[in-house]
Amino acid sequence: MRTYLDAHKHSHLDALKEILRVPSVSTSPEHAGDVQALAEHLRNHLESIGLKKATVHSTPGHPIVTAEWLHAPDAPTVLIYGHYDVQPADPLELWETPPFEPTLKGDRLYARGASDDKGQSFIHVCALEAWLATEQRLPVNVKILLEGEEEIGSPNLVPFLEENKVWCACDTVLVSDTAMFGKNQPSITVGLRGLAYLEVHVEGPTRDLHSGVYGGAAPNPATILNDMLSQCIDLKTGKILIPGFYDEVIELTKAEQEALHALPFSMDTYTKAIGIEEVVGEPEYTVHERVSSRPTFDVNGLWGGYQGEGAKTVLPAKAGAKVSMRLVPNQDPQSTADKFKSFIHSIAPPSVRVNVINHHGGSPVVMDLTSDPIQKAAQAFKEVYQTEVFFTREGGSIPIIADFKRVLGVDSVLMGFGLNEDGLHSPNESFSIEDFYRGREVSARFLAHMASDGTEN
Amino acid sequence: MRTYLDAHKHSHLDALKEILRVPSVSTSPEHAGDVQALAEHLRNHLESIGLKKATVHSTPGHPIVTAEWLHAPDAPTVLIYGHYDVQPADPLELWETPPFEPTLKGDRLYARGASDDKGQSFIHVCALEAWLATEQRLPVNVKILLEGEEEIGSPNLVPFLEENKVWCACDTVLVSDTAMFGKNQPSITVGLRGLAYLEVHVEGPTRDLHSGVYGGAAPNPATILNDMLSQCIDLKTGKILIPGFYDEVIELTKAEQEALHALPFSMDTYTKAIGIEEVVGEPEYTVHERVSSRPTFDVNGLWGGYQGEGAKTVLPAKAGAKVSMRLVPNQDPQSTADKFKSFIHSIAPPSVRVNVINHHGGSPVVMDLTSDPIQKAAQAFKEVYQTEVFFTREGGSIPIIADFKRVLGVDSVLMGFGLNEDGLHSPNESFSIEDFYRGREVSARFLAHMASDGTEN
Repeated sequence: MRTYLDAHKHSHLDALKEILRVPSVSTSPEHAGDVQALAEHLRNHLESIGLKKATVHSTPGHPIVTAEWLHAPDAPTVLIYGHYDVQPADPLELWETPPFEPTLKGDRLYARGASDDKGQSFIHVCALEAWLATEQRLPVNVKILLEGEEEIGSPNLVPFLEENKVWCACDTVLVSDTAMFGKNQPSITVGLRGLAYLEVHVEGPTRDLHSGVYGGAAPNPATILNDMLSQCIDLKTGKILIPGFYDEVIELTKAEQEALHALPFSMDTYTKAIGIEEVVGEPEYTVHERVSSRPTFDVNGLWGGYQGEGAKTVLPAKAGAKVSMRLVPNQDPQSTADKFKSFIHSIAPPSVRVNVINHHGGSPVVMDLTSDPIQKAAQAFKEVYQTEVFFTREGGSIPIIADFKRVLGVDSVLMGFGLNEDGLHSPNESFSIEDFYRGREVSARFLAHMASDGTEN
Repeated sequence: MRTYLDAHKHSHLDALKEILRVPSVSTSPEHAGDVQALAEHLRNHLESIGLKKATVHSTPGHPIVTAEWLHAPDAPTVLIYGHYDVQPADPLELWETPPFEPTLKGDRLYARGASDDKGQSFIHVCALEAWLATEQRLPVNVKILLEGEEEIGSPNLVPFLEENKVWCACDTVLVSDTAMFGKNQPSITVGLRGLAYLEVHVEGPTRDLHSGVYGGAAPNPATILNDMLSQCIDLKTGKILIPGFYDEVIELTKAEQEALHALPFSMDTYTKAIGIEEVVGEPEYTVHERVSSRPTFDVNGLWGGYQGEGAKTVLPAKAGAKVSMRLVPNQDPQSTADKFKSFIHSIAPPSVRVNVINHHGGSPVVMDLTSDPIQKAAQAFKEVYQTEVFFTREGGSIPIIADFKRVLGVDSVLMGFGLNEDGLHSPNESFSIEDFYRGREVSARFLAHMASDGTEN
């Protein structure tokens, strides 16, 4: 197995590069053709490595690709989930290499989606190929499900799961769309934050006005937007001021707190890695707690009036913002979005028209780290990386983890191969080639362990 | 004279259209060639109508065009000032006709600069042409000065005035760059607000971050920008909260207040004209006072993070805003800018880097409405429009009016031919053709009255 994987490093990397070249940006209507083309390419690839019934399923949005290998009657069934869509690449001018021309520099591969999630999910495809090529079988039953809408909130995945419950039935879901705790510090993610994402539009005058002629009497949507958003969070205490926001928040148990406090942390490394002067947020929580186990309020986008060079004395007709809130158990994305919406409308001055649009959301999730699949994943990591495995909580959201639990009744194993420095959603996203290579063996070993009765460790 | 002006309506309109076709946007470096070309075109035109020494003066920025006619030894000298540069046309998609293809619809001419200030300043050129064509002389000495940098704060005009004090010497400056009180309600502007215009840049992480991975601990420049700007004004009371902001503000005298209160005003017409639900600002002042005689704080532009379609969960690396403050006597643009800058730095959290850039500013100005030139301008208006003339204060800024006073020691006559509905600085800027035609006669008569000893009224 290892021989095969070693011999196929280059061909696997080349196959990944081919996938990264397709700009499958799910949020941009103009890239719909690229998303479709990549779905078909993946179907063909899954078929070519020996998986059965490789299929591109049409949805009202972007397609879902599935394939299977179900010839291990006494073994459990693993559903491997990944997504082949990516975030937009802008701001384009900040990329040092073209986002859709994967470029190897040192030990990292640069491209949009290199880590999130094309690179990570392709690791399992390589592991399946290695099993089928060397053993002509898989140790467990495997179903693979790749969606093209993760970055826009997976609107068609839950309907697909519900309509295909029988096919989707499994013992565990395997997902690689998270980060390791650090370089050579493999970890299994046992908690994820949820997400509520909204857009606020403020409209005042029917046209942009001269700020000299009307300033002082005409409502300014940009000023009003600033004012409303500033009322959502107290930056001094880090507390979110939306009424009822914390009502459903469960504080960490002492055990969970201790697990987080046990994780290594260097403030200096942390602030330097992202180039900030100092951290912000709730001082009574550690940084690990703030970014993984506490809810947040962030402005993700802001616009209004004149953004060009120089000075334009305009009183803008409208302004807008994208805002998101990360959620923790037991906050609900819909009810949190409703609270935000009600609050904004309650503080909106009568001089302007305010519209709040709810984008996708996702529920927070916490897994039992003592469960059999999670322990087996840790074992596979340990064998390949030759080091202890951390159990962490991540601040990001993978809403479908909660959906798998709800619709299929199973927990997921979050076997992350990314690193925090991968720059997900940022310019110059990259992925460690070494972890791409090693990940294939971790995946292959995990499948083998899943076939046995208990951990052998 | 009137016969000549009537006979040349079409040729004057065509000549104006030719000027409007040149996109002389002074704030955009890519339009520098257009600004230069228009300067040369104007020089040729001034020469062709019989003015002397028509010249394009190079400056470190855009050129200044001058011409003169100085053959009335016993008569006073009028310096006619105008500007041939325009504001940017964006947002382009909101124009119903191309901004640089002047289009006549009903009784209005649509184009960027139609009113501000190409249309208004060309009125005087037509009046001079009429005098020279019919009488082969002007009733007074005339110097004409057209600049190409008014919309970017006239950085090279004051140096020009100072270096050419002898040539610029005059008894009064005539400027048409303001609005009449209303349709068929001619007015002379006797007060203008000043301006301080700044840009705030907030920089946090060195790159855009994933808001899930870092949200809760990494400083968010967009959220912080919102918070800082919201601390500059209390939208409920309309009061500006920058420390010391009102220190130099002189309240209106009772007489000035009464003059403003005497102006007709309909709240319904006002709010409907700009499509707002209700006015905002300081409730203890009338709307006329708020927009002409009270200082303001407005956000003119706002940007940060993701502005595209859909959802992007980015924690932006930076955010920025353009802000401006309208000033009233005796506020000083530089010291007001300094107060804003100090305030922003004093409230900027240590987690981010904040940079405040000062754009151009201008001092507020108030004129004596009983002065001879202003009374003669009112007389000319009255003769042509056959109605009483209002004396108003405008909310906009023409910083060079204060500069003329300071450098040349003379007051200006603000003979506005615009209307509030002209849409200055907005898409679909337009100018009333009827006022363009009548304005030429007002200008011609004003020059005649200036030659006499006192008003004949």
